[in-house]
This record gives sequence, structure tokens and C-alpha cells, in this order.
Amino acid sequence: MNRVPDEGLILVPGNSLITETPEEGRALALTIARHTIHNIQPDLDVLKGGRPNYSTSPDSLIHAAQVVSLEFQTIAAANNYWRE
Amino acid sequence: MNRVPDEGLILVPGNSLITETPEEGRALALTIARHTIHNIQPDLDVLKGGRPNYSTSPDSLIHAAQVVSLEFQTIAAANNYWRE
Amino acid sequence: MNRVPDEGLILVPGNSLITETPEEGRALALTIARHTIHNIQPDLDVLKGGRPNYSTSPDSLIHAAQVVSLEFQTIAAANNYWRE
Amino acid sequence: MNRVPDEGLILVPGNSLITETPEEGRALALTIARHTIHNIQPDLDVLKGGRPNYSTSPDSLIHAAQVVSLEFQTIAAANNYWRE
Amino acid sequence: MNRVPDEGLILVPGNSLITETPEEGRALALTIARHTIHNIQPDLDVLKGGRPNYSTSPDSLIHAAQVVSLEFQTIAAANNYWRE
Amino acid sequence: MNRVPDEGLILVPGNSLITETPEEGRALALTIARHTIHNIQPDLDVLKGGRPNYSTSPDSLIHAAQVVSLEFQTIAAANNYWRE
Repeated sequence: MNRVPDEGLILVPGNSLITETPEEGRALALTIARHTIHNIQPDLDVLKGGRPNYSTSPDSLIHAAQVVSLEFQTIAAANNYWRE
Repeated sequence: MNRVPDEGLILVPGNSLITETPEEGRALALTIARHTIHNIQPDLDVLKGGRPNYSTSPDSLIHAAQVVSLEFQTIAAANNYWRE
Repeated sequence: MNRVPDEGLILVPGNSLITETPEEGRALALTIARHTIHNIQPDLDVLKGGRPNYSTSPDSLIHAAQVVSLEFQTIAAANNYWRE
Repeated sequence: MNRVPDEGLILVPGNSLITETPEEGRALALTIARHTIHNIQPDLDVLKGGRPNYSTSPDSLIHAAQVVSLEFQTIAAANNYWRE
Repeated sequence: MNRVPDEGLILVPGNSLITETPEEGRALALTIARHTIHNIQPDLDVLKGGRPNYSTSPDSLIHAAQVVSLEFQTIAAANNYWRE
Repeated sequence: MNRVPDEGLILVPGNSLITETPEEGRALALTIARHTIHNIQPDLDVLKGGRPNYSTSPDSLIHAAQVVSLEFQTIAAANNYWRE
């Protein structure tokens, strides 16, 4: 099996939900969502094989965005919404 | 690849969840949802090619609205619901 | 294009999440959900063309109700659940 | 059109999210979910025509239960989870 | 109709969201989700007839697990997450 | 029936939502999601038979990730987001 590299399997990169800015928090949300999928399916060839399907399907893209929004809810709360 | 312009790839435009009004907060929710999709699929031609499908499908529109509602939950909480 | 009237495109009618009663809050949730869809698809003819499909499909109706429930979560929190 | 009776169109019956017990709160969640659907599709014949489909489909039943769970989240929070 | 027994129709068994442990809270989440479905479809034969379909479909199982996760969010909050 | 081993049926392993780190909290979210599915479908052969389907389907993987994100919301809140 052509396995996802170890760093792509870390569930919470940096082992923290705290970020300096909303932009970084959102990027973390995207990464956490991706790494979860890597853990469920760690075979890079399968992941790459599926990408042309979901990445060109509006419904799949909307669903992927939904997962990011849920991760971001958690991260934003963790950072008290980066209120000053 | 005909790439989404850089500004369409910013995850949290303005790098803040704080807005003056609910209307602006809602607009931000829509933008954040769209930009997430741009980051997952940055090819403008693919995005435009898919639009006729999802934008005329009630189920896809409902799903897109669901993502906006989740983003808005976060933004509304960040702004203490714009209570006076 | 036969465009949704301007008032149907306002994202948060009244520009506030605060309502007097739960009933009004729920009505606002329905309106906000609808106006979101209007913003994503502002062509009235397309919207009306799709209505016979989703409004007679139980699965689509359940999904639409789900979006309303998410909007209502936000509005109810904004109003401290109208506790006396 | 064979319209849903007026009482079935009230969005929040009793105009309150406060209930005496979790059991009543859960019943309210079910009612609110149903009445939302009545508002989106107020034609009783259409609703009854669709019932044999969704009520015998496990996937539709699971989705309907999901909407109830979201409504209950709101109602449970409104009641401080009926903690003593 | 071969009706679900009365106890399977109670919406919140024990009429409380408070449990001694997370394990019991999670079991309650599963029960509440099931009883909701029983209330929407109280015909045991229909329920049993559908089980072979959803219980062998990964997508249906994932969806069922999603509903449990939503119920558990409520129950966990009710119990202050069983923090000591 | 080739039944899931007993330890795979524990709903909340360790009977606690508290973890030392976000990484451990995320791993717990994955485990709780899996064990929920084991409880709904405890037949290992059915589970293994379905894996090739969902684990190679982008849409199924995205849905599975969504469930994990919901479990993580609960666990992260339980741990006060591991703020220092």
C-alpha cells in the first residue's frame, strides 16, 4: 500500500486548537478534516483515485465544506472567536 | 488551470468573524462557505461547469443553505448575536 | 432573468435576530433559510421550476426542515430562548 | 387544495420552548419538526401521499430522527436540560 | 398493525437526561434515537423489514451514528460532560 | 454470527470524555464513532464486507469524517478545548 505520509495522519497537527488568527484557525479546520479522512482511508492511491470524482461534483464539494464548517465551529469556540 | 483569483482563496476575508450587523455577518457566512469550496477545488472552469447542476437542483440548494447556516452559527456566536 | 425581488434577497430581514416570541423567531428562521437560497439562485423561474420536485419529495422536505432547525438554533440562542 | 388545519401550521405550539419535563420537550421537538414541514408543504394530500415512501425507508426515518435531534438540542438548552 | 410495545415509544426513558456516567449517557443517546424512529414509524413489521437494508449499508450506518452523535451532544451538555 | 469483540462494543472507552491532549481527544472521537456503529451492527463479517464500499467512496469518507467532527465537538467542549 502506498501509505499517506506519517505527518498526514496526525489528527490534530500541533496538538492544539489555539491559533493566532481566524485565517489560521480555518486552515486548521481544513487540515483536521483531511487528516481524519486519511486515518479512515490511509491508502494514497485510493484517495487520489477518488479525488477526480468528488472534486468535480458540486454536491460532494458542498458536503466537504460542511465538514470544514463543523470543525471550524469547534476551533472558533476554542479561540473565543478571536475577539479582542 | 484557470485558477480562482487569490482573493477568492482567502479563508476568512478580513481575518475576523466580527461584523457590524447581522446582515454583514450573514454575507460573511456565504463568503466563507464559498471560499472553502474554492480552496478544495481552485479550478474556476470546474466550478463554473458544475454551477448549472447544483444551482438548479433544489436538493443541492438546500444543502448549500445548510452549510451557510452552520457558518452563521459560528459568526453569530462570535458577535454575541449582535444583542444591544 | 426573472429576478427575485430585492426584498427577497435581504439576508437577515430587519437586520436583527431578536424577536418578541418563539413563533416570530421560527418564522424568521424560515425566512432566512429561504433568502439564503434566493441569494445562491436568484432566478425566480428556476426556483419556481424546482418547487414541484422538492415540495412533493419527503426527503427534500425533511432536509429543508433540517436547515430551518439549524437557523432556529441560532435565533433561539440570540433570544436567550425567550425565557422569562 | 386540502389544506393542513390551522393548528398544524403553528410554528411553535404554545409559543414557548419551556416544558415541564424532558418527555414533553421531546414531544415538542417532534411537533415543531412536523409543523415546519406543514408550512413548507401545506397540502395534506401531498403530505399523506409521501408518507408511505419515507415512513418505510430506513434512510428517510434516520433523517427525520436527525431533524428531531436538532430541534431537541434547542429545546433542551432552553430548559437548562431540566436539571434540578 | 404489529405495534412497537409501549415502552419503546417513550421519548425520553426515565424522563431525564442525567446519567451517572458517559457510558450510560451514550446508551441513552442510542435509545432516544431509536425511540424517535419508533414514534415516527410504530409498525414493528415495517421496522424489522427495513433493518436488513440499513444495517448492512455503510452509508446508512454512518448516518445512524450521526444521529446518535447529535443526541449525545445534548446529553453530554446536560451532564456537564461528567467532569469531576 | 462473528461478533465484534466486547471491547469494540464499549460506547465510551475509559468511560470518560476527558483526555490529556487534543490529539487523544480526536482519537477518542474516532473510536466512539466506530463503536457506535459496532453497536448498531455487531456482525464483524457484515462490517468488513461493507468496508471496501465506503472506504473507497469519497462521499462516504466525507460523511464518516462529519460524524467524527460532531463527536469531537462534544469532546473538545468537555475538555474546555484544552486551553491552558
